Amino acid sequence: MSASIDRYVSENEARFLEELKELLRIPSISTLPEHNGDTHRAAEYVADKLRGAGMENVEIIETERHPLVYADWLHAPDKPTVLCYGHFDVQPPDPLELWETPPFEPAERNGNLYARGSADDKGQMYSHIKAIEALRAVQGKPPVNLKFLLEGEEEVGGVSVAEYVAKNPEKLRADVALVSDTEMYAPGMPTLNIGLRGLVYMEIEARGPARDLHSGLYGGAAPNAVFGLVELLSKAKDADGHILIPGIYDDVEAPSAEEKESWTHLPFDEAEYLATEVGSTSLTGEPGYSVFERTWARPTFEVHGIAGGFTGAGAKTVIPAKAVAKVSIRLVPKQQPETIIAAVKEFVEANAPKGLVFEVRVLSAGPGLMVNPDHPAIRVAAKAFSDVFGAPTVFTRSGGSIPIVGDFANHLGIPTILMGFGLPDDGLHSPNEKYNIRNYFDGIRTLAHFFEEYAKA
Amino acid sequence: MSASIDRYVSENEARFLEELKELLRIPSISTLPEHNGDTHRAAEYVADKLRGAGMENVEIIETERHPLVYADWLHAPDKPTVLCYGHFDVQPPDPLELWETPPFEPAERNGNLYARGSADDKGQMYSHIKAIEALRAVQGKPPVNLKFLLEGEEEVGGVSVAEYVAKNPEKLRADVALVSDTEMYAPGMPTLNIGLRGLVYMEIEARGPARDLHSGLYGGAAPNAVFGLVELLSKAKDADGHILIPGIYDDVEAPSAEEKESWTHLPFDEAEYLATEVGSTSLTGEPGYSVFERTWARPTFEVHGIAGGFTGAGAKTVIPAKAVAKVSIRLVPKQQPETIIAAVKEFVEANAPKGLVFEVRVLSAGPGLMVNPDHPAIRVAAKAFSDVFGAPTVFTRSGGSIPIVGDFANHLGIPTILMGFGLPDDGLHSPNEKYNIRNYFDGIRTLAHFFEEYAKA
Repeated sequence: MSASIDRYVSENEARFLEELKELLRIPSISTLPEHNGDTHRAAEYVADKLRGAGMENVEIIETERHPLVYADWLHAPDKPTVLCYGHFDVQPPDPLELWETPPFEPAERNGNLYARGSADDKGQMYSHIKAIEALRAVQGKPPVNLKFLLEGEEEVGGVSVAEYVAKNPEKLRADVALVSDTEMYAPGMPTLNIGLRGLVYMEIEARGPARDLHSGLYGGAAPNAVFGLVELLSKAKDADGHILIPGIYDDVEAPSAEEKESWTHLPFDEAEYLATEVGSTSLTGEPGYSVFERTWARPTFEVHGIAGGFTGAGAKTVIPAKAVAKVSIRLVPKQQPETIIAAVKEFVEANAPKGLVFEVRVLSAGPGLMVNPDHPAIRVAAKAFSDVFGAPTVFTRSGGSIPIVGDFANHLGIPTILMGFGLPDDGLHSPNEKYNIRNYFDGIRTLAHFFEEYAKA
Repeated sequence: MSASIDRYVSENEARFLEELKELLRIPSISTLPEHNGDTHRAAEYVADKLRGAGMENVEIIETERHPLVYADWLHAPDKPTVLCYGHFDVQPPDPLELWETPPFEPAERNGNLYARGSADDKGQMYSHIKAIEALRAVQGKPPVNLKFLLEGEEEVGGVSVAEYVAKNPEKLRADVALVSDTEMYAPGMPTLNIGLRGLVYMEIEARGPARDLHSGLYGGAAPNAVFGLVELLSKAKDADGHILIPGIYDDVEAPSAEEKESWTHLPFDEAEYLATEVGSTSLTGEPGYSVFERTWARPTFEVHGIAGGFTGAGAKTVIPAKAVAKVSIRLVPKQQPETIIAAVKEFVEANAPKGLVFEVRVLSAGPGLMVNPDHPAIRVAAKAFSDVFGAPTVFTRSGGSIPIVGDFANHLGIPTILMGFGLPDDGLHSPNEKYNIRNYFDGIRTLAHFFEEYAKA
């Protein structure tokens, strides 16, 4: 990293922190309509700061729900273009009583900044703007072309940004997208996330008798919608977590030997993971696969919820007429959602217990993604991260899904650098969410360094 | 039947109907506290009518919830004693909009009396009182000794009457109990119910991770309480309805060849049963057993309700920490609830998926019962029923449970005559409940005739 950038960040740390606190004081809770004005205010705040950092064509784009913010700076001919994404909306702060200091009054403790949205994603998103500011202050202008697309709906599904990306591929054209909304594997360990699982989310409904029946009078002869659903679901996965739906593993590709080998170097204590994270008596999952493989590189079938029949207090002896389960299959790269949906529907049809009618409703579907770690932008990002933090960058995957990454891949045809500065204990969506203040400043340094180096690549 | 009884009933039909209507106008809905006064008023009404019929020692016995009514007449030395049971409380009438005439304004249509409680059980219960009145009017006194025990809690579990029976075996001592709270197999077909299934009702709860987990991050490694419960339940019963819990069938006794043969003469149309009663595409149940055997003489395992995880609108990707199912096993005579509970607990322990902790909570437990059709009281009842209705009496069983019959057997050591005058389409617990007016009057005749004949037996 250039010494001048380093110095500029150091000299402006107090102001950078103050500006972030101002943004964190805006309760831009996207799920609560009474906070719509606040979410809009957050959009105006970041739009203003983008202008201050020298970005051009700054627009607040109104949508059916919450606004998007767009900006660009495109005066680096022959240099690559980076599309920076982030979100300025936050989760609700409940339960309020568990916060040590109020969620929208940022407080510094033990080197951390406590506030709702500090890590997810205001602190990380704002780093991008401050990195641009630093580059412009020190070097007169950014070293690469830049586009910003920030949204206020990430915590409620991100429908507007997905539509916007689909409709504006030309406007958003770039060489790579950059997202800081993930975490480092461990403190001090630079981490790039290069794999995400996809998700097919479905409701499976079973309908049997025309109405709930008396289980004494009809028990033994009438089909039971709850039990039929139980029977069907039990056939979808074995006790080891192996999915039994035919065809599900057809397109599953094993991670490379190199990638698997790299995971063995990640610090991981299975007993501690079981006790402190999962909080159960035993882990489950496919034998012969490590926890990393099982959660990052294997498809999984989960039942998220189930409901049917009488569930009040006490006893009611009905044979339920209807039952529904919410289920999902997490997909690994190469698995196609359409193929998986077809396989599930065929499985349900083939295994429907007699006397019952089943319906499969697809609520959402998106593929898994891998970024090639040898992509030039990823290589540069890894080096920049490593340079600033003074440790080698590790490549991990996440078992979760970040739909915007799929939108960038599908509609813009570009990879996404998932370069996050959060930490595993930041408490996203929880009381006492925090962001490490050192990571905030070093994140700004890392991003500026990445832009510098990427211009040279 | 003596011609004088027949004539007395005929001459008093209008008044008998009017008195029943008056009772039906009292909305004695036992589950709704705002109707507690009405339930008490119904108790007072029947107490008054018992006095009017010449019964003695009439008491309204207050309980923790709704009152019991006791009465006796014990002046027939060397004659048997009959304990008459019935209930004067009713189910709520909802949904009100489906009633053609208001539920508590009895209306006559097509030879039926429409009102909540007309068949279940006010009409049937009141027949006993009118039979006694007729015998006393015509013969000066009843031919047998009589005790009445009527309750106002049958529709909410009958806790008070069960306790009263357990605590007062001497007071309630009798040779046989007589209950009119069942139905005839078909119109014009006198029916005595000689078998009831028992019931063990349980909640099975599964607990896995300490809290709901993110299915992206932990899916593949963390146990899922809903899926674990699904796995466990699916092992309890096969697709044919055969229970797989070891030991469940140990004490199951097949009905006698004679009883099975008698069922083949009952009119039964499986296609119509499927279409109009069950309302499904197919029946289920153990191959090789008739619908009568499956619903009357075989134990069954049913899931009455299940709940766990996220069941709201839309998608939430949690691995649920907890799930609970309400299940029951219906028991046939000879099966002991304690043995069955132990077998279920052992099964759950042996089949609990790893990473999950299960708890089995027993909500209620009662054995199945058979009455010997050769018992003198049953033989007399069958003949009396047949005499009045002019058709042979059939012996059926019910797949349901009537706990009071078990209480009479256990605490008083007596069999119960289940002599009901309802019809299969009476719509118990449903809108437009009705009682056939002809059956009301002929029920009174049958009961009076039974008392006369039983005195001679």
